[in-house]
Amino acid sequence: MEANHDILERLSTLLESRKGADPSSSYVAGLYGKGLDAIARKVGEEAIETILAAKGGDKLHLVRETADLWFHSLVLLAHCGLAPRDVLTELARREGISGLEEKTARRLAP
Amino acid sequence: MEANHDILERLSTLLESRKGADPSSSYVAGLYGKGLDAIARKVGEEAIETILAAKGGDKLHLVRETADLWFHSLVLLAHCGLAPRDVLTELARREGISGLEEKTARRLAP
Amino acid sequence: MEANHDILERLSTLLESRKGADPSSSYVAGLYGKGLDAIARKVGEEAIETILAAKGGDKLHLVRETADLWFHSLVLLAHCGLAPRDVLTELARREGISGLEEKTARRLAP
Amino acid sequence: MEANHDILERLSTLLESRKGADPSSSYVAGLYGKGLDAIARKVGEEAIETILAAKGGDKLHLVRETADLWFHSLVLLAHCGLAPRDVLTELARREGISGLEEKTARRLAP
Repeated sequence: MEANHDILERLSTLLESRKGADPSSSYVAGLYGKGLDAIARKVGEEAIETILAAKGGDKLHLVRETADLWFHSLVLLAHCGLAPRDVLTELARREGISGLEEKTARRLAP
Repeated sequence: MEANHDILERLSTLLESRKGADPSSSYVAGLYGKGLDAIARKVGEEAIETILAAKGGDKLHLVRETADLWFHSLVLLAHCGLAPRDVLTELARREGISGLEEKTARRLAP
Repeated sequence: MEANHDILERLSTLLESRKGADPSSSYVAGLYGKGLDAIARKVGEEAIETILAAKGGDKLHLVRETADLWFHSLVLLAHCGLAPRDVLTELARREGISGLEEKTARRLAP
Repeated sequence: MEANHDILERLSTLLESRKGADPSSSYVAGLYGKGLDAIARKVGEEAIETILAAKGGDKLHLVRETADLWFHSLVLLAHCGLAPRDVLTELARREGISGLEEKTARRLAP
């Protein structure tokens, strides 16, 4: 993990730097240009690819599709003014609340 | 990020420790017990929740749904013998290949 | 098909009749009461179930999940002031435009 | 509905006739050629488009996306040796079992 533990942070910086760029200048700038629906659709499509990869049983395929899923959810976060650290902080917040209790707590939340 | 940059690694350790546990002992053990289809379905459902949250425009809601999405994709990875570092390594590998080139490269891959 | 060819029309009539009913009075009234996001989420969830059923290879399971998918898309249409005949009319309209031409035509549409 | 009530049946006949055709000869033949995963993925993608159209509030858009969703679920059924009448028969079978009772019954089914 040495070299990779901050890849999400580096990708977040990259995604911020692409904002306002010519949509034809990069894949991400193109997605921003198409807007929220196009980005959200990509998240959904990559989730379906992830499900199909998991069912297919090829581990390398599953890793690649999950990477696509996470990447496009980072684009969605960036488009909405958020960063991966917001999600990691939320995951860390839940860390103390384990298992069924957490699920129940969320269901009961207003 | 100080406290959170290795939350994915800690969650991975937690998810490994739940393997083989009584399905009624925790939410994750229950998911493992239901098997691959149930876990894959959760990934798909949380992607849909993420899309709806993004459309709804409430940032906190989007953070929570993305956390649910990432968490359940961690469960799917663990169930398939993989870990978040596999995905982070894949994302880092792609880092040098930017924008449209990367997308094209993946499309041309065998 | 004798007895079934107008089942979509009969379901449409049923779905209209449930509008404004006490949300606790039926499954459909409960869905209406939860609103658009809950109904849209069900459509997404049933699509995922349909995909998993197709991958599973059990024909009866696939029929049941597709029925769930169509049913909840009827609820979504009804909630939005539409009926199955609107969709059937659209499918009939496309009937003369076959294959790749149709797909291309839709892509080029304004 | 006069002209349209059997459009699903006509589409089913069309989809059967495309089986075994050169994948480059039509959009449907191309989908068959790509196989189950590609067809299932289209069902998932059209469900996401349907959700986004519903959230967007444009009725004509929702009709078109629902038509895409139903059409691709017909392709999936055909690929798996099934026909729309199987789904319509299932919907008619459930017709007598209304509301929450039906949902409960399905949950309790083995």
